[in-house]
This record gives sequence, C-alpha cells and structure tokens, in this order.
Amino acid sequence: MTNSFHPPQRTLMGPGPSDVSPRVLEALGRPTIGHLDPAFVDLMDDIKGLLQYAFQTENALTLPISAPGSAGMEAAFVNLVSPGDKVIVCQNGVFGGRMKENVERCGATAIMVEDTWGTAIDLNKVKEAFTANPDAKVLAFVHAETSTGVESDAKALCALARENNALTIVDAVTSLGGIPLLVDAWGADAVYSGSQKCLSCVPGISPVTFSQRAVDTINARNTKVQSWFLDMQLVMGYWGGNSKRAYHHTAPVNAMYALHESLVALKEEGLENAWARHSKHHAALVAGLEAMGLDMLVAKEHRLPQLNLVAIPDGVDDAAVRSALLADYNLEIGAGLGDLAGKAWRIGLMGHAASKQNVLLCLSALDNILSAANAPIQSGRAVAAANAIYGV
Amino acid sequence: MTNSFHPPQRTLMGPGPSDVSPRVLEALGRPTIGHLDPAFVDLMDDIKGLLQYAFQTENALTLPISAPGSAGMEAAFVNLVSPGDKVIVCQNGVFGGRMKENVERCGATAIMVEDTWGTAIDLNKVKEAFTANPDAKVLAFVHAETSTGVESDAKALCALARENNALTIVDAVTSLGGIPLLVDAWGADAVYSGSQKCLSCVPGISPVTFSQRAVDTINARNTKVQSWFLDMQLVMGYWGGNSKRAYHHTAPVNAMYALHESLVALKEEGLENAWARHSKHHAALVAGLEAMGLDMLVAKEHRLPQLNLVAIPDGVDDAAVRSALLADYNLEIGAGLGDLAGKAWRIGLMGHAASKQNVLLCLSALDNILSAANAPIQSGRAVAAANAIYGV
Repeated sequence: MTNSFHPPQRTLMGPGPSDVSPRVLEALGRPTIGHLDPAFVDLMDDIKGLLQYAFQTENALTLPISAPGSAGMEAAFVNLVSPGDKVIVCQNGVFGGRMKENVERCGATAIMVEDTWGTAIDLNKVKEAFTANPDAKVLAFVHAETSTGVESDAKALCALARENNALTIVDAVTSLGGIPLLVDAWGADAVYSGSQKCLSCVPGISPVTFSQRAVDTINARNTKVQSWFLDMQLVMGYWGGNSKRAYHHTAPVNAMYALHESLVALKEEGLENAWARHSKHHAALVAGLEAMGLDMLVAKEHRLPQLNLVAIPDGVDDAAVRSALLADYNLEIGAGLGDLAGKAWRIGLMGHAASKQNVLLCLSALDNILSAANAPIQSGRAVAAANAIYGV
Repeated sequence: MTNSFHPPQRTLMGPGPSDVSPRVLEALGRPTIGHLDPAFVDLMDDIKGLLQYAFQTENALTLPISAPGSAGMEAAFVNLVSPGDKVIVCQNGVFGGRMKENVERCGATAIMVEDTWGTAIDLNKVKEAFTANPDAKVLAFVHAETSTGVESDAKALCALARENNALTIVDAVTSLGGIPLLVDAWGADAVYSGSQKCLSCVPGISPVTFSQRAVDTINARNTKVQSWFLDMQLVMGYWGGNSKRAYHHTAPVNAMYALHESLVALKEEGLENAWARHSKHHAALVAGLEAMGLDMLVAKEHRLPQLNLVAIPDGVDDAAVRSALLADYNLEIGAGLGDLAGKAWRIGLMGHAASKQNVLLCLSALDNILSAANAPIQSGRAVAAANAIYGV
C-alpha cells in the first residue's frame, strides 16, 4: 500500500518556489468552501484589491489566473496577440525563448532581439527593431530574468513601446514584491507574475493585470482567443465587478486562501519595506560570497536582489555541491540553465526567504562544503562579511 | 488593513468542490519543497501510479495537469485536434457546449449531437453522425454530466468510436472515483477529470490519461499544439518516466501533496468500495427525498449517484432555500443550470461527502426549510426512509 507523503523541511533558496511562511501554509489548509460561496466571492474581491496594490495599478482587470506563471504568460499572449501580428520579443534568458514559442503558437511573427544571457536587454537594439518593424503591435520582455538574475529597465522599455504605439507584455514573475514594479506609472499593458517567488505563496497561481489599452485590444479582436480556459473575457465573467458571477471554472479555492494571506502579509509589511528587505539581504549575501572569493556573474547595476547568479569555482562539481546542500543542510539552491549550466548557481532570496537566517545558513553551508571539497575559496570569512552589512 | 481570511466550515453537497477530508487538508499544508526536489520527483511517480489505478489504465501518459478540469478538457482537445479536423461532440448539458467551444478554437469543425438536458446521450444519434461524417476524427462526450446528474454509456460510446476509427475524448470530471470508469477496458483515448469531485481533493488539478493511440496521434501532428502550457509533449518532459526531468512549469507542489493523499485514501478504500459507497448513500438520499414527496428528474437508469437532480416544488423560491441552507446549516447544494435554473437543485454526494451524516443533514435541513416555507411536501418522513436503506 502506498503511504502518505511527508516532505522534508527544506530551506528554499533556489529560483522558486521560495520558502512559504507558516501563516500562508496555515491559511492554505483551512476548510474548503464553494467557489461561488458568498464568502469566497468576498475573498475574490479582496484579492483583486490586494493585487492592485502589489502591482501598483488601478487596472480593473487585475486577478489571479488559476494556474502557474507559464499559464499567466500564455494568457497575456493569447489575448493580446492575433494571427498575423508582429511581436518584438526580447530574449536574454530562458523566458524570452518561451515568449517566442507563445507568439508563434498564436499564428503571429516574433521579431527577436537577443542579448547575451546574464546581461540586461539593450534598449538600442529594441529601438532598432521598432525602426525596422514600425507595424509591431506588441513589445514583450522579461523584467526580472529568473534564469540569470538580471533586471532589465522595464520603465524605459514600456516608454519605448508607447512611443512606437505598441502594447507591452511584461514578465514580472520574479519581480513582483521583490523590486519596484510600477504598472501604472510605467504604462505597462499586460503583466503577469507567479505566486511562488517574492510573494512566497505556494506555487500554482499567476497574478495578472491588464491595462485599459489592453482590454480595448481584447474587445476589438476579430478572432476568438484560442484558449477557452485563458480567455480573459470569460475569466472576467467570473472574477468581474458585479455580484452575480458567471461560472467559468472552479477556482483553486485553498490556493486562493494562501495567495490572499501572502498579499495581506505584503501589505502589512509595505511594498517599499519589502523591496528594502530584499536589497539588504542581497547586499549581505553578496558581501559574504565575495569575501569567500566567489564571483557574481551579473554586472552590479543589473543584479536582481532576489536571484543571485554566482560563478561556480573551477574544478568544483556543480551537482555534488547542490546535492550536499540538500542532503546535509536541507538547503535548495538553483542550477544554472542553458549556457550557464554547470557554470553558475542561482541563489534566491525571495519573499519570506529573504532573511538573515537564510543568508547566514547559505554562506556557512557553502563555505563548509566548498572547503571540504578543497575548492579555491577563502574559508571562514563569509559570515563576518555578511554580518558587517547587517551592522553586527 | 485587510485581515486574514477565515472561511466558514461548510458541508459541500453541491456539484463540487466536495467536502475535503481532514487528512487531505493536513497534507496540503505541509512544508513546500522544490518542484525538482528528488523527494518531489518520487512523489510525482507515486501520483502517476495512483492515477493509473484510479483510471484503471496502464497508459504511460497519465498525470495531473497543473490547473482545473477546464484546462484538462482543453489539454485533450488542443493535443488531439488539429485545424480542419471534424469532431463529433455530444451535448446533453453544459459541458458538451464547452467542448464545442474547444473544438472551434482549435480551428476544427464540431458536428453536434444534441440531447435534452437531463437525458443520456442517444447512441443512435451518434451512429447517424458517424454515418453522415465517416471522416470524423474524434468523438467527444461527457461521461457524467455535472450540470444535470446524468450518466451516459461511456463503454458503448467508446466502442462506437473504435468501430468508426475515431478517437474518444471523455469528460470524466465527475465520474472518476464515483462510478465505474474503465479506461483500458473501454478503450477510451483521452480522459480528463478534476481533483474536487469524487476524489475529494482541493480544486485546481486535472488528472488526465492518454492512450497509446492518442499519443501516436499527438506525435504525428503537422502543427504545434496551440497551447504551450498544455502541450503534452512538453508536459511529459517534466512528468516523464526518466529520472532527469526537464523543467516545463513550476508544479503546484502543495496541491500535489493533497492529490496524492486523496489517491492514497481511494486506494486504501478500494475503487469498488468507493463506487458502492456512492451508490448506497445515493439510494438513501433518493429514498428520503421521495418520501418527502420530491421528484428526481433523471430516469433511474441514468442517474449519477454522486450528483442528484431534484425538482424544486412549485412555488418554492430556489435561491431562498439555498441561502437558508447555507446560512442556517452551513450546507451548500447546487443550483440548476441553463433550462434547469430555478427548476432543479443539484445535490452532490461526492467522495468524502458521500456519507450517512451528510445525507441525514441534507434531508433534515431541506425538510425543515421547506416545511417552514409551506412547500407541498410530506414532512417528517425523509430521515426514516433514508435510515431504512441504511438498515437502521
């Protein structure tokens, strides 16, 4: 007979999911109610308001998609992009490539603007792409590349799109709650995120927001959205503003309890304080890693505080170190992807995981494991360097 | 400041979600681990095996889609149906209509076979549709119509499709775990279900299974699947049989704990015992309702034990009764849909909710509320009639 599953208690410092706080797990496990229960409808309204705060937007069409961030990405593309459209897609990591797939599966053409993985999107290349393709309808880019730990200048990219009369699709999966993301101030049009990064909720939900300009584009479509499940006009009938909700799908009720609780926690802390917290622990982590002699791979001005790309020292076995971290410290960090596989680690400091406790655990554990493997590091210095940042 | 959400404790006897057992809620709230953690990969393997048992199949491509049943439906259509295909769609309730939407959004043609809501699919009409459309590639139908409480003859429909060299897409959202569903014995090709019905797991996950014939069809496609998120070839890379899993999306880790626990509970009970339990409590509920003078709207031979369509007596205010059940008894039952709105209630006995306690609560509460509203019922007889079935 198969047995119940009891997961190990990990510390999650990879690219997500991040550590989920006890209060969110507790909310998750509360009794299930119906997805049309008046109490659940009230909760839905509350979630919409809290997401508007997190996204810094007044967009009416702001809600959680009942599926992971990949589905949030797809929701943005299938609703805004019609067959025959041209979409400029910036690629400087894994997720730009996924955007290209989405564009092509919509029967549209992707104009690729490529930058080296680990660098930010080059605005000049995007300008050139608009010059060569003045009829581009959408500019799509990743604000915070989870695969490399790079922040691109979302504000400037949104402005560039507006100058060229194009809509923007912004991947904010890893940015929401970790670094400034000002949807209204920047004029972003379709923005999607994930529950399991800096919101520190359980994985499986994708908050999205659409500007009025985006909604007008959806309403003006000549063809039906190719996905029934992700058709925002149908989704809105369920999440919409009036009290009579039309059944569309059965919402993941308990996951919504958890998302709500994580958003309440974010509001209690305050967005600016959450950004500052991520920044502080990032500084401490970097000080410790550099004191150890490890190199950060992203230029300082483009580094995401919530996801840190660290070079693996020569001769060190990537997988062995990560396995030891997991086995001996119950600590998960992320592997490099693509060209960075085997060459870099990705250390997350997302949401609830952005804490002094986690920074010091990670530095101590890495120091111990790398020292034991005779890696070329400066042992015994990391924690003091981090503590100096903390003012200890 | 927005507060944490504390849901009321409901008894869920609507069309789903159904009551979630404490053991499943407890599993749901366990600490989150990474979606590529070795412990999670083991759990995924376990879930696949348990789903094979629940579906009574040896299909290798048996896994849970990380989104609600609506997405499971879409996964079946977008993978099996290509632009230009003909699909025979049986409609005898809400979900057949949704299938039509899916077919059309795939650029295919839906040949509709319509039956009155509340009746089963007429096999002769389906035969005629095949005669008129010998090139139909797929037959799509709903095994257990959640909108009406009707079971159609899935075995015969699958056989008919095979005779006509067509694949089957079978909506088993409400049937899985509640009534016999024999995927291999019947030769069904793409079958999807939901976590929140007779599995009594939290909503948000859609178990699916694809036959080898379906997999061959997917592999032979000339066009990419229009959904990146639901492309089964990509999903398989993550859920696949080898130990090196390719990242596709971040699985809803905690929901998978819950699904696993609900499947373990099903296996402990045994499928046949679960079917018998649904049947027994259905008999008791019907005995009680009929003793009260209420009419069942579905012919006896087509009734789903897990979803009971009951006529609302003349002059009784549908919404007022359901509101009173919710307010005074914390009991949720379902409203009628479509032509049945205001004319029928849907009383669910799904999974953990199929219990004597729930049957007696529902009968007592309905008796009290209807009596107080001077409805034309025989008060005071229902509980005894149900208890007679229980042998009390």
